[in-house]
Amino acid sequence: MRTVNAYAAPSATGPLGRTTIERRDVGPKDVMIEIAYAGICHSDIHTVRGDWGPVRYPLVVGHEIVGTVSAVGSEVTKHQVGDRVGVGCMVDSCGECEYCLRGDEQYCAKGHTQTYHGIDPTDGTITQGGYSQAVVVTEDFVLRVPENLELEKVAPLLCAGISLYSPLRHWQAGPGKKVAIVGLGGLGHVGVKIAAALGAEVTVLSQTTSKKDDSLRFGATAHHATTDPETFTQLKSSFDLIVNTVSAKIDMAAHLGLLKVDGTLVNVGAPAEPLEVPAFALIPARRSWAGSSIGGIRETQEMLDFCAEHGILPETELISADDINDAYERVLKSDVRYRFVIDAATFA
Amino acid sequence: MRTVNAYAAPSATGPLGRTTIERRDVGPKDVMIEIAYAGICHSDIHTVRGDWGPVRYPLVVGHEIVGTVSAVGSEVTKHQVGDRVGVGCMVDSCGECEYCLRGDEQYCAKGHTQTYHGIDPTDGTITQGGYSQAVVVTEDFVLRVPENLELEKVAPLLCAGISLYSPLRHWQAGPGKKVAIVGLGGLGHVGVKIAAALGAEVTVLSQTTSKKDDSLRFGATAHHATTDPETFTQLKSSFDLIVNTVSAKIDMAAHLGLLKVDGTLVNVGAPAEPLEVPAFALIPARRSWAGSSIGGIRETQEMLDFCAEHGILPETELISADDINDAYERVLKSDVRYRFVIDAATFA
Repeated sequence: MRTVNAYAAPSATGPLGRTTIERRDVGPKDVMIEIAYAGICHSDIHTVRGDWGPVRYPLVVGHEIVGTVSAVGSEVTKHQVGDRVGVGCMVDSCGECEYCLRGDEQYCAKGHTQTYHGIDPTDGTITQGGYSQAVVVTEDFVLRVPENLELEKVAPLLCAGISLYSPLRHWQAGPGKKVAIVGLGGLGHVGVKIAAALGAEVTVLSQTTSKKDDSLRFGATAHHATTDPETFTQLKSSFDLIVNTVSAKIDMAAHLGLLKVDGTLVNVGAPAEPLEVPAFALIPARRSWAGSSIGGIRETQEMLDFCAEHGILPETELISADDINDAYERVLKSDVRYRFVIDAATFA
Repeated sequence: MRTVNAYAAPSATGPLGRTTIERRDVGPKDVMIEIAYAGICHSDIHTVRGDWGPVRYPLVVGHEIVGTVSAVGSEVTKHQVGDRVGVGCMVDSCGECEYCLRGDEQYCAKGHTQTYHGIDPTDGTITQGGYSQAVVVTEDFVLRVPENLELEKVAPLLCAGISLYSPLRHWQAGPGKKVAIVGLGGLGHVGVKIAAALGAEVTVLSQTTSKKDDSLRFGATAHHATTDPETFTQLKSSFDLIVNTVSAKIDMAAHLGLLKVDGTLVNVGAPAEPLEVPAFALIPARRSWAGSSIGGIRETQEMLDFCAEHGILPETELISADDINDAYERVLKSDVRYRFVIDAATFA
């Protein structure tokens, strides 16, 4: 066991604060990672505040983790000491079900082990996330970070990046396809960059036009305000695919009306409350409303390699550990362009 | 113009009654059909009662029509006098958009012309449906009825049949696939027969187990009651495809939970009110909720030929014109096994 510094939520309402946690000994198939940077994901905030259900406190969150390998177990073959690596939202899965076998560990029939607030299959403890100095993870869930991706900015790809890459690939965004991204935040802005790099024609649907210049800079060809009813008239029946990154209620009938025949709207944002959806928004054009959750490990590696090839990195703002609580407030106000990344050196 | 007897709704609340309507002269591409039988679809009732929006009364409904060709226009090539033919929910479409060109006239970009309560592109009148003695339809929207399908029973295939056949084919019901049909009514019972004939393993989800014997007789291997909470535990994550034929609110989260990873629930029933759907029912298993509307003309012919090949016919109860109002009440009480068909001879 190794004691490391971390930043934990003590309760649903108390501010996060400094603490120490134990990391398990490196087992035969484990990799120990000295964390360099950890992204702040909206899910971290939902989780610690209990929005998604009861929580075992104190809890260390963070599932956008990058760093350097400092030790490997005797049977590890995929990683070596000194490698630049990353860990996303999963640290384990059953490895035997049809979904794991086909590389969709995120849909593991027995449920994958979440990077934080999961039950660690190796020792039954509650997993603790990336707001800390180091982490021990089984090698199959550790990703290689390509050399040309700047380590300070790459962390958000491990959740935001794969959460957008996976549905964009699954629903075949590419040349000739019109894609809309709803919400230009941590997830959305990476989605715009990836969809454009895949060759799709990308439109951003944002509450206002205040981020229009950013949308175009990230590769979109259009940016429309969802607070303007004209948007829904002008763009009616025009998209093959819409990826909704907003984790709040939106007017689903209006947004589904923007899809062509056989088009799909995919939620990657997860509002806590049910959405009201009229079947009439789907039936007359064989539209679909789907959900998508992160991506598999093989696909996450593919995403990192794709981003390296196309020079795609999230837009980030580097903060210190003691800025985390302020950063949470700013995320809740959408006052971040576009992702906070914690400098893990400041956990020391 | 030809005056024919018909049965019309005078208002949203008044009973349907006898009347006469005019049918246009047979144009160069038109076919005149002496109607033999017309099915009663739940949509007829929704429409005449104004559930789906304002209505131009008086209105003759009915979009499950079979009969015999009595006259053809000079340019008609597909049908001859004496042929057994059918007409479903559409009587025209633009013929030029990408959807019409690929055979999906039901999703015509300009909107297809509904068999009743549409605007007839030939003369601008409101189309009048099949509760009548005869109808004139452009030949491209007239289907051939295979010889071995009993004319008295075939009418419901033109709406109920294609409404189920199209999504079952589109979402690839077949050998190795587990399919559930929600609701064993006019649509559902045909869906069970077709899905079983396609080679899928079929389960019926009905409010109670009262129709279990029928389900098994129609080709299902299981029948479960949706009023029994155990159903949703026992069948969790087990279907590739669920077709929901119920046009009332159902517990969407519970039903979506029955889908495997990448499974799809398709609504062909259209509740007037929005359904409440939690995104969390979709996201963790990349599930989809879709809608589907009837099918294209080529696909409808394919469905009729498929039913002829597999000996599939709806279960029907033959009634006279003057029984229509009583039949409506019985449909609303689900007191029909499984589709009413009007003997059009009784319009005389």
